[in-house]
Amino acid sequence: VSGQASIPAPLEPVRWDQDAVRLIDQRLLPEKLEHWYCRSVDEVARAIRTLAVRGAPAIGITAAYGVALGAHRAVERGRNIRDDALGAIEQLRGTRPTAVNLFHALDRMRAVIEAIPAAKDRELPQRLLEEAHRILAEDLETGRRIAQVGLEVMPKRDPLRVLTHCNAGGLATGGWGTALAPLYAAAQAGRELSVLADETRPLLQGRRLTAWELARARIPVRVLVDGAAASVIARGDVDLVIVGADRIAANGDAANKIGTFPVALAAREAGIPFYVAAPLSTFDPDTPTGREIPVEERGAEEVLGSASPEGVGALNPAFDVTPASLITSWLTERGALQPPFTRETLARLAKENDKAG
Amino acid sequence: VSGQASIPAPLEPVRWDQDAVRLIDQRLLPEKLEHWYCRSVDEVARAIRTLAVRGAPAIGITAAYGVALGAHRAVERGRNIRDDALGAIEQLRGTRPTAVNLFHALDRMRAVIEAIPAAKDRELPQRLLEEAHRILAEDLETGRRIAQVGLEVMPKRDPLRVLTHCNAGGLATGGWGTALAPLYAAAQAGRELSVLADETRPLLQGRRLTAWELARARIPVRVLVDGAAASVIARGDVDLVIVGADRIAANGDAANKIGTFPVALAAREAGIPFYVAAPLSTFDPDTPTGREIPVEERGAEEVLGSASPEGVGALNPAFDVTPASLITSWLTERGALQPPFTRETLARLAKENDKAG
Repeated sequence: VSGQASIPAPLEPVRWDQDAVRLIDQRLLPEKLEHWYCRSVDEVARAIRTLAVRGAPAIGITAAYGVALGAHRAVERGRNIRDDALGAIEQLRGTRPTAVNLFHALDRMRAVIEAIPAAKDRELPQRLLEEAHRILAEDLETGRRIAQVGLEVMPKRDPLRVLTHCNAGGLATGGWGTALAPLYAAAQAGRELSVLADETRPLLQGRRLTAWELARARIPVRVLVDGAAASVIARGDVDLVIVGADRIAANGDAANKIGTFPVALAAREAGIPFYVAAPLSTFDPDTPTGREIPVEERGAEEVLGSASPEGVGALNPAFDVTPASLITSWLTERGALQPPFTRETLARLAKENDKAG
Repeated sequence: VSGQASIPAPLEPVRWDQDAVRLIDQRLLPEKLEHWYCRSVDEVARAIRTLAVRGAPAIGITAAYGVALGAHRAVERGRNIRDDALGAIEQLRGTRPTAVNLFHALDRMRAVIEAIPAAKDRELPQRLLEEAHRILAEDLETGRRIAQVGLEVMPKRDPLRVLTHCNAGGLATGGWGTALAPLYAAAQAGRELSVLADETRPLLQGRRLTAWELARARIPVRVLVDGAAASVIARGDVDLVIVGADRIAANGDAANKIGTFPVALAAREAGIPFYVAAPLSTFDPDTPTGREIPVEERGAEEVLGSASPEGVGALNPAFDVTPASLITSWLTERGALQPPFTRETLARLAKENDKAG
């Protein structure tokens, strides 16, 4: 997915801009494309928690820039740079529990701090910013590679009828996406595509974000309610399902936006492939199975609206876990993989990443 | 479910009131409990088409009263009573395609007309009204019996954790409901209940109607997004699923509100029972399997809202079909049944209904 053909330049959901972390405020899409310039770690934390920025890779990138921001602010305010950078890591770690990319990115930032002796603290702001830039650049490269991996494994049917859930596109990453990256590559390769986007309640990331970014790239897209996906698959109108992930356990179980698991059940029932596309930073060898993935429970107002009637409660898990047995393959920057995803396997693949990158 | 204990009197979603068909306008719930007095067949047809009244049994009852209304209006306006009543049947037949109760009720009204010689046309308004009253009374009795049938088959666990989709309650029927009737009976019998109501996009019948009517009866209810049902079932938090139906084919395949089928897949995966509760009038022996059930496709605005972004379409099937293989049993006023539901079986059961009623 380089700059040719009809696909527009990648989205820029998270960028460093004039000493601020500049985010597309995704809560305002598709009505308004507006930026939020976060000028403090508090603001970055709030942006992550309120879903102004969301998507596992994008959260990781944002948090990394947030740590760099903390170091920059410390210099300006004459505070201890190292303490403030470490404080930023702690604060950002508490924003959301499920996406492992967040912890992965923060661990990298901490490693940068630990590699620099106390005497050289004044180098920290620049070194942390460079690491954040590197995390973003790697993510963009990862998107390009997942695009090619996906293009190779997807059925060769034209038009290719794809269903996706939530938004694992440019907006959820550095700019190219995970689940949507192969679709951009397919469109660029001249393949005929027809995409069904689950609206993705309660926050409608499919209707608001996926539909918007695919329409921006002139890829035909139709929105359906989440409950309609299973029967549309059952009646033979979908060739493959592709989704992203927020955390993938060692056995291959994948946490993703609530509503993913029933789509996987329907795909198996219909005998069509169900792909999970994610960078290696989404894999967590320290989580043995999906049962151990912490699932964020969010507020009732997301489901009930502001005026919840008396005597009516809500249950609002933000993610579900799709068991590995329902997943055809795991599309990563190192190819279409199969579990188990042990620490050793991932370390070896990461090394290949370094060589390739 | 007679008048004792804590369960309030049945809802009155459809009643004949002073020469008008009085409906609870369900589009306004739960914010407002308002009545719509339909004074013409056109109004009744509009009420059905716009979902002011919905639910397969309630649609049938409303249409029956609509035909009686047509005959009454014909008298007042000095028009041909028989022609207008037959015209009402034709007009109401075109309002919605999936619920077979509509056609069943209209067939009964036509039989009344055909049984009366032309010379006695002036008896038509009263005779048609009596038949509509009979359809309503039978439905209320059916609800009471389904309640008992459900109470007997449901697991004896306390608290009993039930999940339902859409609204197959009092509002969807003459007043007691189908899927919710056994829950009212269980509450009245002193059983401890905990109900999860799928919100049921796009029109939120679960959040707006099911939650409202269960809260009204002081049955604990929590709303969840449709996509959350599968994982909440998978993690062991649900003992049984019970839903209504809009049409049941001869082989047992059941059409119900979009989003029912993935819940059935999740129930099978978790090994919990999945019950379909419906009166015999919902069974259609002339439709061999679910493939032959016509599924209504409704407007894109229900999914996208009024401001649909450029280049974004929608797909909006109002129903899906759950295959018989996923259904534990079919709870009717004649007991918990198993397919096939042939014309002969249903005729025999209907005869028992007559005897019992």
